[in-house]
Amino acid sequence: MNHDELLDQFDIQRLIYQYASSAGELDVAGFADCFAPGGRITSRGYTGDLLSGNFTQAIIDNLKAKYVSTMHNVHNHTYVVDGPKATGITYCVASHIERPEGQATNLEKFDMYIRYHDQLIKDKGRWFFKERRFELLFTTQVPVQNISP
Amino acid sequence: MNHDELLDQFDIQRLIYQYASSAGELDVAGFADCFAPGGRITSRGYTGDLLSGNFTQAIIDNLKAKYVSTMHNVHNHTYVVDGPKATGITYCVASHIERPEGQATNLEKFDMYIRYHDQLIKDKGRWFFKERRFELLFTTQVPVQNISP
Amino acid sequence: MNHDELLDQFDIQRLIYQYASSAGELDVAGFADCFAPGGRITSRGYTGDLLSGNFTQAIIDNLKAKYVSTMHNVHNHTYVVDGPKATGITYCVASHIERPEGQATNLEKFDMYIRYHDQLIKDKGRWFFKERRFELLFTTQVPVQNISP
Repeated sequence: MNHDELLDQFDIQRLIYQYASSAGELDVAGFADCFAPGGRITSRGYTGDLLSGNFTQAIIDNLKAKYVSTMHNVHNHTYVVDGPKATGITYCVASHIERPEGQATNLEKFDMYIRYHDQLIKDKGRWFFKERRFELLFTTQVPVQNISP
Repeated sequence: MNHDELLDQFDIQRLIYQYASSAGELDVAGFADCFAPGGRITSRGYTGDLLSGNFTQAIIDNLKAKYVSTMHNVHNHTYVVDGPKATGITYCVASHIERPEGQATNLEKFDMYIRYHDQLIKDKGRWFFKERRFELLFTTQVPVQNISP
Repeated sequence: MNHDELLDQFDIQRLIYQYASSAGELDVAGFADCFAPGGRITSRGYTGDLLSGNFTQAIIDNLKAKYVSTMHNVHNHTYVVDGPKATGITYCVASHIERPEGQATNLEKFDMYIRYHDQLIKDKGRWFFKERRFELLFTTQVPVQNISP
């Protein structure tokens, strides 16, 4: 590890946070901006339908349609940089607030425990996702006590 | 981004952690030390009563009075540094252990999902909060199984 | 804080993440590799039986035997570096998926809220745990909705 790689590591961390915050704020442009041309999200069967076409729009539309609020908290980002490429993992607990079907008021917090396995590339001094593989470990659901207006 | 800004980013991260740990350990001096002279916490209606006078003492007193234990876990700190100023956001899940009213033994974990919107200033080589705007997204409450003596 | 200490801080962060990911992936070699010769984990009564002999193997065996899945999410890592020594604290929410006794299908997520109090040493350019004191603050248990196959 040297001083220049530290800059790369920090920029990669920024990318991880940009993905999380644009997902949470339903910001399609910011979300799409995380991916290299041809970049993609893969998952074992789970998000297969989002892999073709404008998948970044589709993911944000899906979050918007299904959840009242959503927050991606990320941890444990560990990346190995090799020139203009990097690979690594980020942990995430994505908390989605949903309204159980047919109920007017009772909200639930649906938590997805995720490991993202990433392949990154650097282009003109910035890092982008080439492939982000989504590994869902487990999910829980607990009642919401309160939500901001 | 250059090497010197990286030092600023790291020092800002330290400030974020200092706020979290002094809140959790009910350390008034450490908590107050996070704020510039005239610094403040703002919130939409929620913590308005803490904004005047010695608000850092009031916040810690409030945590002490209401909760048996409290832990601020922070994530996703993204800041933009501009000379001696910086702006940015930190995510936080603040877990508070409370004793439901009128019950002797059943503890509950009350989780607040927070985004802090920060304005920072640098003075004599250190970063401080000028304004920390507290945005509460949602809260949950689940039973506590065990608590350390 | 200077540029070289920033490298130390980043390497310490790596160590924190290596501990978390090897625990989660039941990787005994990776877990053992976090500790200096003679390094140890201490805890107030809680893990005393793991302190002698091959405790890293014992900890991973224990995680494997008790839980269907486990994920250590860490936050708030604050360390002070003093030459080849460092001390500091990391926050952790360790989420363990367990099968309640005598039940075939109902899984529970058992969350441990932890503060690790660490003493680190640097040897041949790498950081290791000399002592990791485990402080358990509280635990919760909620039903699991789904788990990956």
